[in-house]
Amino acid sequence: MCLEHSKESFCKNNVNKMKNTVWHHANVSRGLRNKQNHHKSFIIWFTGLSGSGKSTIAHAVENELFKQGCRTFVLDGDNVRHGLSSNLGFSEQDRKENIRRIGETAKLMVEAGIITLTAFISPYLQDRERVKNMMPQGDFIEIYCKATLDTCERRDVKGFYKKARAGKIKNYTGIDSPYETPVNPDLTLNTDDQTLKESLQAVLALLNRKSIL
Amino acid sequence: MCLEHSKESFCKNNVNKMKNTVWHHANVSRGLRNKQNHHKSFIIWFTGLSGSGKSTIAHAVENELFKQGCRTFVLDGDNVRHGLSSNLGFSEQDRKENIRRIGETAKLMVEAGIITLTAFISPYLQDRERVKNMMPQGDFIEIYCKATLDTCERRDVKGFYKKARAGKIKNYTGIDSPYETPVNPDLTLNTDDQTLKESLQAVLALLNRKSIL
Repeated sequence: MCLEHSKESFCKNNVNKMKNTVWHHANVSRGLRNKQNHHKSFIIWFTGLSGSGKSTIAHAVENELFKQGCRTFVLDGDNVRHGLSSNLGFSEQDRKENIRRIGETAKLMVEAGIITLTAFISPYLQDRERVKNMMPQGDFIEIYCKATLDTCERRDVKGFYKKARAGKIKNYTGIDSPYETPVNPDLTLNTDDQTLKESLQAVLALLNRKSIL
Repeated sequence: MCLEHSKESFCKNNVNKMKNTVWHHANVSRGLRNKQNHHKSFIIWFTGLSGSGKSTIAHAVENELFKQGCRTFVLDGDNVRHGLSSNLGFSEQDRKENIRRIGETAKLMVEAGIITLTAFISPYLQDRERVKNMMPQGDFIEIYCKATLDTCERRDVKGFYKKARAGKIKNYTGIDSPYETPVNPDLTLNTDDQTLKESLQAVLALLNRKSIL
């Protein structure tokens, strides 16, 4: 094919190399990045009702991991729903697409060497399973933030339960949209009773047990 | 509101803290991550026809930056079109949505402290402008990989031009879909003539000129 090129200099210097690069993907691999960072990269996936503590706990874990020198990032409603998923609503189909996009973005971040924490209700078992199956085994850690609807509704941190009860918000998980409880999560945090500190310690203990830090 | 809670322990320990965390976003900021990494984070956006060298040059730049100890990642067709954008085709609307998603993902990665290189045709001026405008000033560096259609078509690294000419691929940029040339890119690489090494050096010189490394 090189013979067809009139620009021999580019051909000799670039095209063959280009071919290699295009088809052999990045030369900087996840393995090299993990080595550079001195830690593995993986997803910590928090799931649970709104108000169950997912985002708070995810940020607390991130803070602790960052202090230990890790590369971390939290994907949550604040940075995803106004950006990557800003063109999605809360229908079942849109929720599925939202979780799919989050899963794909988290996968890219893990590839980039980052311990990626996600804090989304992610109500459907199948959607969480799909993300888990996208990842190499052990790279998807599911943490169930368990709190009763009663507790979450009384907390109502964002005031959304009240609006959902008043019919001002539709398809609100726990009110008029289902939440499918994890069957076999890596960890369950009973945030009805546990303090934030206790939840944080439980997550860190899990990461130590799994020897992934 | 705390008075309404029956679980006082959670209320006292968690809810107020939760409120702060939810509304004040992450405690680990981009600034802290940049400090941890000893370098700024930003987007290097490569645009140009298929075969103009975008991905090859992006990976060469990444290799060099990684060698210098930087945190880097390349978003390109290989890792985006099969994942995040796997439900999109090549119509004008789908291309726009593809670039939007890539922009949003790159923005998250920059927030996570990563020098994010993107290698996509990104044919529409407006779409590239939109990503640029999403980012703080100076955090979006546009690099135009300039090569004539004639050159790209003769290279035809992936064999797609041939298929497009044969009508087996529709909406192929340069054949039956437009490419809008950058008006004021941060750098133009004439990959008709330049070697990969020359292009790499030009990009590194630009980064040094901008004092962002």
